[in-house]
This record gives sequence, C-alpha cells and structure tokens, in this order.
Amino acid sequence: MMQRILAIDAGGTTTRAIIVDLSGHCLGFGLAGGGNPISAGVDAALASLEAATQMALGVGWCGKDTFTSALVAMAGASARAPREWIANRLTGVGLRGNVEIESDILATFCSGTWLSRGYALVAGTGAVAARIEDGRLDRVSDGVGWLLGDGGSGYWIGHQVVRAVVASLDNRGPETALTKLVLDSLQLTVTSESDHGRPLVLLQVIESLYSLRPIELSRFAPLCFEAGGDRVASEILATAATELDKTLSAVRDATLDGPLVLGGSILTKLAGTAPLADLLTTMGDAELLPVQDGIVGAAVLGLRRAGVHVDGEIFNRINQSVMRLRETAAMNGSSA
Amino acid sequence: MMQRILAIDAGGTTTRAIIVDLSGHCLGFGLAGGGNPISAGVDAALASLEAATQMALGVGWCGKDTFTSALVAMAGASARAPREWIANRLTGVGLRGNVEIESDILATFCSGTWLSRGYALVAGTGAVAARIEDGRLDRVSDGVGWLLGDGGSGYWIGHQVVRAVVASLDNRGPETALTKLVLDSLQLTVTSESDHGRPLVLLQVIESLYSLRPIELSRFAPLCFEAGGDRVASEILATAATELDKTLSAVRDATLDGPLVLGGSILTKLAGTAPLADLLTTMGDAELLPVQDGIVGAAVLGLRRAGVHVDGEIFNRINQSVMRLRETAAMNGSSA
Repeated sequence: MMQRILAIDAGGTTTRAIIVDLSGHCLGFGLAGGGNPISAGVDAALASLEAATQMALGVGWCGKDTFTSALVAMAGASARAPREWIANRLTGVGLRGNVEIESDILATFCSGTWLSRGYALVAGTGAVAARIEDGRLDRVSDGVGWLLGDGGSGYWIGHQVVRAVVASLDNRGPETALTKLVLDSLQLTVTSESDHGRPLVLLQVIESLYSLRPIELSRFAPLCFEAGGDRVASEILATAATELDKTLSAVRDATLDGPLVLGGSILTKLAGTAPLADLLTTMGDAELLPVQDGIVGAAVLGLRRAGVHVDGEIFNRINQSVMRLRETAAMNGSSA
Repeated sequence: MMQRILAIDAGGTTTRAIIVDLSGHCLGFGLAGGGNPISAGVDAALASLEAATQMALGVGWCGKDTFTSALVAMAGASARAPREWIANRLTGVGLRGNVEIESDILATFCSGTWLSRGYALVAGTGAVAARIEDGRLDRVSDGVGWLLGDGGSGYWIGHQVVRAVVASLDNRGPETALTKLVLDSLQLTVTSESDHGRPLVLLQVIESLYSLRPIELSRFAPLCFEAGGDRVASEILATAATELDKTLSAVRDATLDGPLVLGGSILTKLAGTAPLADLLTTMGDAELLPVQDGIVGAAVLGLRRAGVHVDGEIFNRINQSVMRLRETAAMNGSSA
C-alpha cells in the first residue's frame, strides 16, 4: 500500500483536511467547521476533524484508502492537546498510524516556504509572531489571548471599535463614523430617550454587547476597515499595525534572515490600507509571503515527520494541487 | 409606633445596613458580604441583605422593632432590579412597608452632602461619574462595565498591570517592577525554562490569569500603588487619573456648581500619589468631599422618600451616629 498522510489545519472557525502522498500530490480536500478544542469544545472539534477528513477521503481520488499517519495543526498545541481522542476518532475513518500535533503558527510558516528559517506573523481573531529556525519554533511572541494580549488582532480591533462607540455615545469620546456602523450591525438606532441619566441607545448597546462572549467582539473588526477616512477608525488601525510590528520585533533576530510569512484576515485587510512593508518596519526588506491558511504547511510538516525531505519541487506540488482542489471544492459550493 | 427606616448600601463586596429614625438617629448597623444581584447572584445577594439587616436589628437598640420602609442603594438600579424578591425577603425580618431601590452613585453623592446638586465620582472595581440636580441623577457617564469602559477603575488598572507584566515577560514591553509583584501574588517564579518558544513562567502566568473571572483582575490594582517609582506603574496610574478626569468632564455643566463627592478605594489610593485637585482638573476649585461608602446617602434617600426634609442638622446626625456604630462594629471584630 502506498503511504498517504492526512494533514489537518484545525482553525477556530474552519477546519481543512487534505490527503497527500509522499511526493506531495494532494489527493483529497475537505472542509468543516471550527476544529480547535479550546474555542469550539472537544466534541465539536472532534466532529469537525472527522467531517473534514471524510470529505477529503470521499471525493473520489482515495476511494476506500487508508492513511498511515496524521498531522494536525492547531492553536494551543503546546498545551495538553487531546491527542489520544483525536487518534481514536481518526482511526474510525481510516487512520493506520500516529497522530502528531503541531503549532498552527508553524504550519502557517510552512504554508509559505519550504525553507527552515524565517518569520511568521498571523493576525486573525488572535495575533502571534514567531521566529523559525531548523524548521522549529525558536521564539514565539504574543498569541496570549484576548484578555492579556493579542495586540492588533481582530479581537483587539473589534474591542477598540466598540469601546470607541460606547465612549462616543457616553459623551466621553469623539464622534465617529463607527457609531452608525456598529448600531446598524446591532439593529439599533439613536433616539432622544434617556433613562437614569443615560441615553437609552447606550443602555441598549451595552446590553447587546455583554450578551456576546468577549471573543465575539472580533466580528466588529471589519467595520473599522469600512469607516472610510474616519479619524477614530484610522487611529485604531494605525495602532493595530504598530502593535503587530512590536510583536514581530520581539521575535526578530538581526542575525537570522529569512522570509516573513503572513497569515490571517486582518493582515489581508491591513494590506488594503497601506503596503505591509511600510507598516511592518521591523522586518526591513525581508520577502513577504502571504498565505491563505496553514493547510499546505500541515502537509509539509506531515511529510517531514514521515521522513520526506520537502524541497521546492515537492512544496510547489503540494501548493498547486491544494489550489486545484480548493477551486473544485469552491465550485461545488463549499466556501474554501 | 415610631417610624423607622431601613437603609442598605448593597455593594459588590460588602453590604451595609442601618436602621434610622426620622430625625436621623441611627439605631443599628449591620454588615454582610456582596449584595449586588448582578455580581453576587440573586440568592447570595438576598442572603447578604437579610444578614446585614438582622445584624442592624440585633445590636440592641431596636430589639423586636419593625421598620416601615426600606431603601436599597445598588449598582444597576436602572436595570430591572428584583424589588419584589427583596421586599419578600425583608418582610421576613420585619419590613412593614415598601422597598425602594436607588442608584449607588446617587447614594454616594448623598453620603457627602445634603445639597441637591453637584457631582459624584466613584472609582472602585468600576468607575462612574454623575451630575446631580434636584436630588436626582441628571447625567451619568461611564460605569459601563469592565469590557466596555470603566476607565481608571480598579479593574482597568489591574488589567493594565497584568497586560504590562505579560508583555514584559513576552519581550514585547519594558521591564517593570510590577512583574515581581504579580509573580509573587501568583506564587510563581522566573526560571530559564521555555516551552515551544515561550518562557515557561509566561505560560504559567497566562494559565493562572485565565482561571480567574476577568473582573477579578481588579485585585492586581493595589500592586500598581506599591511599585514605587516604577515607570510602567506610574504611567498606568497617570492614565487612570486622566481617564477619570475625562469621565468627570463628560458630566460637567459649567452652569451647575456644587461639591464633588468622591467614593471608592481607587480614589483614596490615588489621593496618596498626588492631590486629587491636581489630578481632576475638570472640576476647577469645587469642594472635594471624600466618603467611605453609600450608607449615609442611602439613609438620606430613605428619609426623603418618607417625606423628611434632610437639612444639614439631620445630615450631620446621620453621619455622626453611623460613625459611632461603625466604630462599635469594628471593635466587635467586624471590618466596617
């Protein structure tokens, strides 16, 4: 039987799975919901891992094939990840070997390059930077979560947005175009009514926002990019970029060159406001390599664990075959 | 039967109750744990209200007397406070009339003055400012909770403290004397060990802090006042004072004079770093009246509801008799 590897990128909102052979040919691609046990819960996460794997197995290329090992990339890999549970679950759908778990930030790096040294910066709901040497995480900064850090992340921006809107409605902060955008998204409108010395709409905004889990404030981040030239929104985005640059500088080693791999929706959106090379000044003239997610890197890491030396040729093969399968999945109606 | 009123200041960590007659003589004083239904939960809050009332009734002056009405001051009074439940509970210990609920910020104001106009600023776990006119809240600012505002509050300072310590351990922020203070309080020590590119102690700090409810970060606020001339700590406190001044300016009306009543442990501690008149520049040369809590004001509001015109003489009588009973309670071992 030919050796095949299952690679999974278990993200907070989307899980991606591919089956790849040892030459880097991707044979199946699957998608499911959030696969991180910490944010989605263990049961939901395991169900997503299984669903994405079944979809990857089921599209025809693999038929009833099994896979000989699995590599799962996820946030919090350094914590006690439930590897046993994942192995049991995947054995039920064809696993005939080990499960290895790797950091999502390392998988992101390996999605952008087959080189074994360089830097990665991911800004999605959270924000984290890493220096990679010898193919391993050498130094990581931030990624410490919404309450304690994640400066410049989607949560961080969304939190600043709602605080600015609350302060403005409360007469403590300047007027901002963000107010209408947030009120619209909460389906609220400003009225002249007040209650116990406060505008009624402010009380309604507070009630709405406290009914969310804090991390859900990240959903207001996109509004900051829609507020045109609004001064308050522009300042939030400028500070976000400064925070991300500061996080990068914490992992920068002047003696270690290499590309900077960029992941996460916030970096994509920031790149629409100014060239990222201008925002991330810490990196000098390093090559910038934006990637869509960590699935290519999960395959790279899985192949390396299987003893394959992943060079540029194999890396490009993974990249291109994943891209083709993504397109097929997208045409079939999934949102890849 | 002589008309007697029960006044309760139901705080987040302490509930105070007094029995007062219509001339302002305080006849009993009681203490219990947190009495706010939102932060303590309804059952625990009702139990605290009952316990504080029984202690106020039981110290001898009142014997088996009843009280003809009750006034309860609490945060979130503008929300749907469970007045029925409180009335039922207090009827069991002697209530023969109505329960009225008032804002804790108004009670704080009335603890400092019998005048019907002026300003109040409270900075404890939360932070809120109010303008009072005709004895009622005319305009309130902030007090919108830990996630959305409360700038300069105990939570706000504690949050800044732990973020600064995490950033420092993570190589993103400057060294600070706060690190040792926070690590000591968490019973952790710096080691040279690391895990997946992060210092081990950072991972331990993160795990400890996420095991708390966010609001509990307020317990790190006092450390900021213990950090000597540390630059990071000094900047946090300076920004806290600026935030509180901004909150005051949002309720300031240049045409409305009056004293500024100050409540909450953070203002007491800030006053130890610089004269408050220098920190709260918004108020010009307004008279500053620090108060210990809202219990005197709860009595003032209860008497007014009973039709009593509270003048300086009655106000001073409440104040002095509460002070005496506090001292007695303190000598008997309770922490008043």
